[in-house]
Amino acid sequence: MHFSPSQSEASRPFLTWQRIIDWAQAHYRERMFNKDERIPTRSGLLYLVHRGAVRLVGTAQISATITNASDEETQGGIEDAFLGFVGSGLPFEIVAQSPFTLQAYAHIDQTAIVWMYWHDLDNWPHFRREVLDAFRYQHQRKLLWLSTLGQRRTVDRLLGFITLLVEEYGESTDRGYRLPYPLTHAQIGSAIGSTRVTVTRLMGKLRQKGLIYVEDDNLICLPYSSPKD
Amino acid sequence: MHFSPSQSEASRPFLTWQRIIDWAQAHYRERMFNKDERIPTRSGLLYLVHRGAVRLVGTAQISATITNASDEETQGGIEDAFLGFVGSGLPFEIVAQSPFTLQAYAHIDQTAIVWMYWHDLDNWPHFRREVLDAFRYQHQRKLLWLSTLGQRRTVDRLLGFITLLVEEYGESTDRGYRLPYPLTHAQIGSAIGSTRVTVTRLMGKLRQKGLIYVEDDNLICLPYSSPKD
Repeated sequence: MHFSPSQSEASRPFLTWQRIIDWAQAHYRERMFNKDERIPTRSGLLYLVHRGAVRLVGTAQISATITNASDEETQGGIEDAFLGFVGSGLPFEIVAQSPFTLQAYAHIDQTAIVWMYWHDLDNWPHFRREVLDAFRYQHQRKLLWLSTLGQRRTVDRLLGFITLLVEEYGESTDRGYRLPYPLTHAQIGSAIGSTRVTVTRLMGKLRQKGLIYVEDDNLICLPYSSPKD
Repeated sequence: MHFSPSQSEASRPFLTWQRIIDWAQAHYRERMFNKDERIPTRSGLLYLVHRGAVRLVGTAQISATITNASDEETQGGIEDAFLGFVGSGLPFEIVAQSPFTLQAYAHIDQTAIVWMYWHDLDNWPHFRREVLDAFRYQHQRKLLWLSTLGQRRTVDRLLGFITLLVEEYGESTDRGYRLPYPLTHAQIGSAIGSTRVTVTRLMGKLRQKGLIYVEDDNLICLPYSSPKD
């Protein structure tokens, strides 16, 4: 398994970034959010995570079934799905689209968000190119994510999902790579089409097999070498 | 439900496109593929679908379980997941990434693919912008797709998946919107984490409820107005 350092960090020219942050602050285009606070977004605007981390969530307002109590896991129809993080220094945008809506939440306290119109980037053509490349990279990551969600067994989807998340966002530690943000079992379940209860059970299985481990604040980690190697 | 016309068709300046195709043909950068033929790809190259359609497929080489016969749906570990289409006039790229690999296949006969290096686009900066915007759009679509795959009930994932596909690629007909490419139930199952047998059963349910219908060559359609409206 190959883990690559965060590409955005390496490729971001610090000076341009600082100039954009200065510009945004001078134009009152920065705002701070607390953990789990929703970030109001409009289609057509571009958002940059200055500090902290953003959690993207999708809501499906489509259902093949009129909700009834006979299904074992009926929960009222509308479900929120965890769609990934946007880390510091990275862009996101939200294009509203029925019958699904996308929303952004601050994932940790003190998350600072800067926003701008796309045409504001006319002043920084290189930075625009970087933003577009970041979306290009994100697109590839989401294709990998979809690959694991196509797997039929929930435990495979779970391990694939964790692997992709840690691969993308993980920090190096003594024993392995650690996801720097906590994630609840309900949030994991919402991403892989499963329930909190099932995720808890399967996470136990993966830990027993040594495929994952968990550190202090519920941070998920992958060991450097798989126990099967 | 709102269906928008294919954005790429509207925004593609025909002259540039024709010039790029001419350039590609003059430089032996075009090749024709038959249905289900694999399109060889290399990381770092950019591919354009000149004619036909491409099917993107992801392969997960990760599994939490050593394959054994006790699981009901064990099938040898490696599963290919259908990840979507790339239609005529649109770009794609494949960045290899363990433990998942992405591949491209011609989805229909006479699919013509043009390829180039990213720096070849230095001659056509506006076109490069368009290509990057196309990936940006694709990224948003994949977020919506992930939203529906987070739904717990397979029938909801199935209807959400079909809705998104038809919304993106569908053609207008007398009665509704029709997906112009056939898709097997096994392919659908591979996208939504289910099996061919289950998809066949649930497609029957959705047809009975009038939420979808199927035309001649197994083409999936959505009626203009939902029967519940």
